[in-house]
Amino acid sequence: MTSTSAAIARLVKPRSVAVIGASADPNKTAGRPVSYLTRHGFDGAIYPVNPKVDAIDGLRCYPDIGSLPEVPDVGIVLLGAERAHHAVRELARRGTGAAIVLASGYMETGAEGARRQAELIEAAGGMRLLGPNTIGLVNVTDSIPLSASGALEMEHFPAGSIGVVSQSGGILGALLSRAAARGIGLSKLVSTSNEADLDLADFVDYLADDDATRVIALYVESVRHPKNFRAAALKAAAAGKPVVAFKIGRSEAGARAAVSHTGAMAGADKMYDALFRQVGVIRAQTFADLLDIPAALATGRVLHGNRVAVLTSTGGAGTLVSDSLGVSGFETPAPDAATADRLRALQKGDHAALDRNPIDVTLAGLQPDLLRGAIRALLASPSYDAVAIIVGSSGLAMPDLMANAIRDCLPESDKPVLAYVSPHAPQVAAVLNQRGVPAFSAPESCAVALGAMLAAGQLKSLTPTQGAAVRANIDTSDLQRGSLDEAAAKQLFARFGLPGVREVVVTDADAAARAARDLGDRVVLKILSSTITHKSDIGGVAVNVAPQDIPARLARMADDVKAHTGDAPTRFLVQEMVSGGVELILGMHRDALGTAILLGMGGVTAELFQDTTMRLLPPSGGLSRDEALSMIRDLKTWPLLDGYRGRPKADVEALADAIVAFSVMTASVGTRLVEAEINPVFVLPAGQGVRAADGVVVIGEA
Amino acid sequence: MTSTSAAIARLVKPRSVAVIGASADPNKTAGRPVSYLTRHGFDGAIYPVNPKVDAIDGLRCYPDIGSLPEVPDVGIVLLGAERAHHAVRELARRGTGAAIVLASGYMETGAEGARRQAELIEAAGGMRLLGPNTIGLVNVTDSIPLSASGALEMEHFPAGSIGVVSQSGGILGALLSRAAARGIGLSKLVSTSNEADLDLADFVDYLADDDATRVIALYVESVRHPKNFRAAALKAAAAGKPVVAFKIGRSEAGARAAVSHTGAMAGADKMYDALFRQVGVIRAQTFADLLDIPAALATGRVLHGNRVAVLTSTGGAGTLVSDSLGVSGFETPAPDAATADRLRALQKGDHAALDRNPIDVTLAGLQPDLLRGAIRALLASPSYDAVAIIVGSSGLAMPDLMANAIRDCLPESDKPVLAYVSPHAPQVAAVLNQRGVPAFSAPESCAVALGAMLAAGQLKSLTPTQGAAVRANIDTSDLQRGSLDEAAAKQLFARFGLPGVREVVVTDADAAARAARDLGDRVVLKILSSTITHKSDIGGVAVNVAPQDIPARLARMADDVKAHTGDAPTRFLVQEMVSGGVELILGMHRDALGTAILLGMGGVTAELFQDTTMRLLPPSGGLSRDEALSMIRDLKTWPLLDGYRGRPKADVEALADAIVAFSVMTASVGTRLVEAEINPVFVLPAGQGVRAADGVVVIGEA
Repeated sequence: MTSTSAAIARLVKPRSVAVIGASADPNKTAGRPVSYLTRHGFDGAIYPVNPKVDAIDGLRCYPDIGSLPEVPDVGIVLLGAERAHHAVRELARRGTGAAIVLASGYMETGAEGARRQAELIEAAGGMRLLGPNTIGLVNVTDSIPLSASGALEMEHFPAGSIGVVSQSGGILGALLSRAAARGIGLSKLVSTSNEADLDLADFVDYLADDDATRVIALYVESVRHPKNFRAAALKAAAAGKPVVAFKIGRSEAGARAAVSHTGAMAGADKMYDALFRQVGVIRAQTFADLLDIPAALATGRVLHGNRVAVLTSTGGAGTLVSDSLGVSGFETPAPDAATADRLRALQKGDHAALDRNPIDVTLAGLQPDLLRGAIRALLASPSYDAVAIIVGSSGLAMPDLMANAIRDCLPESDKPVLAYVSPHAPQVAAVLNQRGVPAFSAPESCAVALGAMLAAGQLKSLTPTQGAAVRANIDTSDLQRGSLDEAAAKQLFARFGLPGVREVVVTDADAAARAARDLGDRVVLKILSSTITHKSDIGGVAVNVAPQDIPARLARMADDVKAHTGDAPTRFLVQEMVSGGVELILGMHRDALGTAILLGMGGVTAELFQDTTMRLLPPSGGLSRDEALSMIRDLKTWPLLDGYRGRPKADVEALADAIVAFSVMTASVGTRLVEAEINPVFVLPAGQGVRAADGVVVIGEA
Repeated sequence: MTSTSAAIARLVKPRSVAVIGASADPNKTAGRPVSYLTRHGFDGAIYPVNPKVDAIDGLRCYPDIGSLPEVPDVGIVLLGAERAHHAVRELARRGTGAAIVLASGYMETGAEGARRQAELIEAAGGMRLLGPNTIGLVNVTDSIPLSASGALEMEHFPAGSIGVVSQSGGILGALLSRAAARGIGLSKLVSTSNEADLDLADFVDYLADDDATRVIALYVESVRHPKNFRAAALKAAAAGKPVVAFKIGRSEAGARAAVSHTGAMAGADKMYDALFRQVGVIRAQTFADLLDIPAALATGRVLHGNRVAVLTSTGGAGTLVSDSLGVSGFETPAPDAATADRLRALQKGDHAALDRNPIDVTLAGLQPDLLRGAIRALLASPSYDAVAIIVGSSGLAMPDLMANAIRDCLPESDKPVLAYVSPHAPQVAAVLNQRGVPAFSAPESCAVALGAMLAAGQLKSLTPTQGAAVRANIDTSDLQRGSLDEAAAKQLFARFGLPGVREVVVTDADAAARAARDLGDRVVLKILSSTITHKSDIGGVAVNVAPQDIPARLARMADDVKAHTGDAPTRFLVQEMVSGGVELILGMHRDALGTAILLGMGGVTAELFQDTTMRLLPPSGGLSRDEALSMIRDLKTWPLLDGYRGRPKADVEALADAIVAFSVMTASVGTRLVEAEINPVFVLPAGQGVRAADGVVVIGEA
């Protein structure tokens, strides 16, 4: 256990809590923490600190931190931003484990707030901090609320196995009240907010070790320490604990002034997609998914196929669920003959149609035995990987009876069993959730949950392929600051084993014509410049030129470029024409989250279709070959590389090598590499390799 | 008023209702209709019919239909499928206005059921039928339940202005209970189910005239009478009543054995998309949207821009809503200076940051005056088109006070005002909805609702552009059954004014070489056959061939084709090479819903990206030019035609003419046209027109 996780363990399960600035009025925010601790049965010591009051809620109140009878494990600081740092300094001086600072008015408000936050950090010294601007944390497992959230006014919260970390305090309360209403049990809830010290990654790391936590749910505004987050998420994955994240900031304009296309196609949100995917974090697409998915994963069940039995007693709602499953790529096959026989045997005399799915058992009123029999038949069937049960109005009258009937079947199989509640009946969903049957009020949630259960089944196999980083000892210290010209860029790529098209640099028409004759029937002619990047926009590119036409074409190009730039070009590139290949883009992108490699379909429609995929580089080195191959298969246009419609299969192996080489170059040059892109890279038919046909490299300060 | 709408008016608001097969036990399904009519205060006559009982619920029970004291307006038939038709025949004989048949076991169960349904229709004669297999209807406006739905066990349903028509009975109950729980008021609810007579279109037509109905919500399984549906939806649009539809069957495999690409790209669900769009029906993407969108539209407010003020007292939830607005293309600009001043004046001494949006008014506790002031400032601001209010935990204690504060501001502006309730608090959302403030529990619903309010604002302008059908008097009776060869297909297109590439049909190498010399520097050579459609798969296409290479290339092509098909080709096409154009696909697709024209991006990635758009032909004639232009602008790749990245602008006018011409051809040939596709059609730079470069036409039976 690291010192941080030990500190969090002490913070989450303290034996003593000091509440600085506690109010005797439980209706005031400053009155809540003591009131909640008392009400929810905290059995450690509670020390209210307030010089103006003698006692709060029957507890002795202390005038100051110095007079506390023991060193508290946790101090909850309820003072405003102008005074909180004094209390923090005093708590630290006494050796308190951690302080929770609720006040706002720090980093989130601007420069003055940032100064206050620095002061707060300085005051804390070696003591750990949660917040500031946090609503606190709730240890549901041990019934210890260290929070002022109004959501804790509720009498009871179901304890369970979902640990929640939110970077927003307000959202924590919303999640707490929503989970309680739906009977979804939580283990720990933390609002990290400004993260002056303890952050998202620290709590993921802690929850990965927490015995009471089986699933980790995150509300993310911004990952402040990507390296720690990566490590913590991989630790959770290795422990078989799925991490589910809802991330805001999705609509941020990711654009920046960039020479390359990569910049336009790689936004901040796509970087998060890449990070989450690489460390096995399941991304919640809607806010509701952030509870729905963990509720399903908390069962510990994972999905091993895509065939779902939809069991219903009400036609319409069953069709609704199976339709949304179909849209999400699941199959809902009709029962096999043996299963149909077993179902038929349950309903003597009734002529329900059992040749279809949704499987309609026509439960006239609630018949628990029939329900049990049908679920058991479907769980035992080799035709299904999961069972979705539609709860209609017949289940409303006796929710316990129905929920128990479903629960009784669970031990017989480890296949996922879910429920969709068709009428408005939150109490029914709550009973089901409490019995270990994830229950949803939106038909689409079944498909979302099953999709996550499929992903969760692959978590354990994720870990070994990570960290297979490659290294290189290729010297790039000779690179000068500024843009490389196209030829120099491709020479850099070639140093790392990434081949370019055959080409010759020339300065006059005669040399160009000679080069063209050497290079083939038709060639490409371009100006060569380290300052002009969008060459084709100013008439600086000609393709499919016959060698005999080179002198005239070169003269015209020189005129066109001079007309646009004012300067006659002095250097040209003569390149072989590559044909029969697939055009891709390979680039790098860097932001606060890390450095990523982007692979995308090239050509004129590249930015319109945005058929791209990204992978963040590991903390050191380049991408593994497996990652490179998985990038290639991510593309919507992957079939174009895989023999689509009678085309030759492309050299996917060489493309994977090129991606690895490009990533190793990116890692090797390091932060000096400001931009790098190959657009296009031609992928030739299998066995013929790839060719970088253009290149952009911008080198920055060392 | 048509006879059908008069019949529906009588059905929906009867003065007398006979209940055939009524049970004296209100807990049985057959006991419900009488019990519901009594309980919800129906003030007309109720005639239970049951030979075994003397009285039900204090009402005299009649032994048979013949002994009823008057002709009922409506007969609810609760008998099973084997006996229902006798009751229907008897009701019809007495002159009853309409019968509602609840029994299942008809068309939905197979051939025997279909026979029963035909028998039922025959028995009804001139009497109108709702069902069979229906749960009935509820006239909420007048408090008349004609239904056996268990959802009616609830004491009270808020009356409102949303008319609901569902093709599934089970779903009707779910919508009824969900709407009631959320305080969303309905006007009429109907389950049409098997639609042996009255169908979805009939009720849309009726609701378009119903004074109590302002919005129409549809749960659609299949539109059985597209022509009537189209007319009814356009009537509703003209009346300013938005129609919102949730359609299942989205995952149906739309594939059929087709010669053309169009078949692979035009699925059944895309046909519905086209139909809905053309008649102004707003499509609900999730089941929840089917209540959320109508709840917003029921306010009668529409959106005239995309700038939304998010007013919050809890940071996290405001960001959540503004983020999802951003993802959906809305803007959330910071307040203008005047508005910021007005907001600042409301909060004396408080230093809330008012230079941002979400606009955080830091409501410590609920302060209705502050809330009113802030909403009024935002509604008056020229910077905003709508206001979304975040309800945090401070609003929970006194929902009426808060809801009234918001309601008080509504008369001052016609801008949309919505609410998002962050904690679990369905009672708060219900109060808000009842006060005319659409309130949602999912943050994403705000964007969905605003999107629909934007679409609803354009409804009235929809009607005039419809029906601008064009006609043609071009004789196509000479077309023989079977596939046309490529040249003949293009000749058919040309008859309707759609030009093809220049080409010559030849049978030998000499003629081919002569043709090639006439056609230019390089040509395309193809085999010409009415039986081989995928010519390139068997080596039957060569592009970029120099005239001098024609004889050798033709010989090789003949060999290749013979190797694949066993027959040496006897006819060839020599075509001009078209370059510098954008490749599109233009095709037709027909299914039960109608005949559609498909426009799509062409090229090798066409089926991978599926960048397509469709329009159904109007009942007679082709598409209007405006529709053709809107199709072109629908494409994701529209920028390629519009001067993207320095490319020349394409001849969009000529493309629109071509789409109209193709649609007129499709309409003129009529149902004999089994398939038709141009792939590719080259769109040349502006002023240079379009060229059909290939063509498929299959003619079927007259």
